[in-house]
Amino acid sequence: MKTIASAHALLLHEMSDLYDAEHQILDALKEMAAAASVPELKFAFTEHRDQTEAQVKRLEQAFEALGEKPMREHCPGMKGLLEEGKELLKADMPDAVRDAALIGAAQRVEHYEMAAYGTARALAEEMGHEEVVDLLQETLDEEGATDKKLTSIAEEHVNPAAMQVASGM
Amino acid sequence: MKTIASAHALLLHEMSDLYDAEHQILDALKEMAAAASVPELKFAFTEHRDQTEAQVKRLEQAFEALGEKPMREHCPGMKGLLEEGKELLKADMPDAVRDAALIGAAQRVEHYEMAAYGTARALAEEMGHEEVVDLLQETLDEEGATDKKLTSIAEEHVNPAAMQVASGM
Repeated sequence: MKTIASAHALLLHEMSDLYDAEHQILDALKEMAAAASVPELKFAFTEHRDQTEAQVKRLEQAFEALGEKPMREHCPGMKGLLEEGKELLKADMPDAVRDAALIGAAQRVEHYEMAAYGTARALAEEMGHEEVVDLLQETLDEEGATDKKLTSIAEEHVNPAAMQVASGM
Repeated sequence: MKTIASAHALLLHEMSDLYDAEHQILDALKEMAAAASVPELKFAFTEHRDQTEAQVKRLEQAFEALGEKPMREHCPGMKGLLEEGKELLKADMPDAVRDAALIGAAQRVEHYEMAAYGTARALAEEMGHEEVVDLLQETLDEEGATDKKLTSIAEEHVNPAAMQVASGM
């Protein structure tokens, strides 16, 4: 049986879970960019992939700041979210509806990260690990900004186009 | 192959996914309340279970407003999130650390709902389904409030106690 004997051990668990989740996301974002139709969405996914690479590095710095080696611990939550997205994208959909579905799937992923980075940051803060707090906060801010950007792409470009699709298809 | 031919069909998919997710959460919240140690957290989970029952009813009203019967469509994202929570709770943990882990798991669930209700609400808004928008917004507000409440329980009660646990256990 696994033992998580302290807040420090829980913080390491949360960071290892996120380290695995970010790697899962890197693979998925490539497929999501390929599946997107409107250029704004394609660009947002491509840009967020670069951001995710930087977030992986930031987690490595956070492990280092704690005197630990980066570890991946399988993240079943992210696996489920990405499975759900893949399942949905198998459906036969007009382009604009697919874009709207993609945004819904991506925002579930962003929100997972917001929750998980928030938990890790709160633990690091309570322990006084300032460098770790700063690193996690930087990523947390980026996830929030990405989520907002996806909402505005949905409102400005995707949902109005999805509405134009004949519903009798 | 499944067909999602219109924004209307995507909205129904999103609502059916949430209808299934809420049912999964109802079962999980009972276990989470049982596993929690500090009374504030136990109470928050119990209270949120009642809220979740009302959210299920609200989704039923939203289906009805669209002239549809409530449908459950298996939600792999929520399944993954709850699996992750169960897996984590199998670990041997001091009570305060377990409470902190429970909050992390619960906030992942809340964030899933915030993302999914947000997507559904944006689609309903674009289609001018005002009654549906109001119903989804009401739940969205509750999820946001629950997430904030969990953060303050973590900050005020749980994380400081978790910090007192001897790290050499």
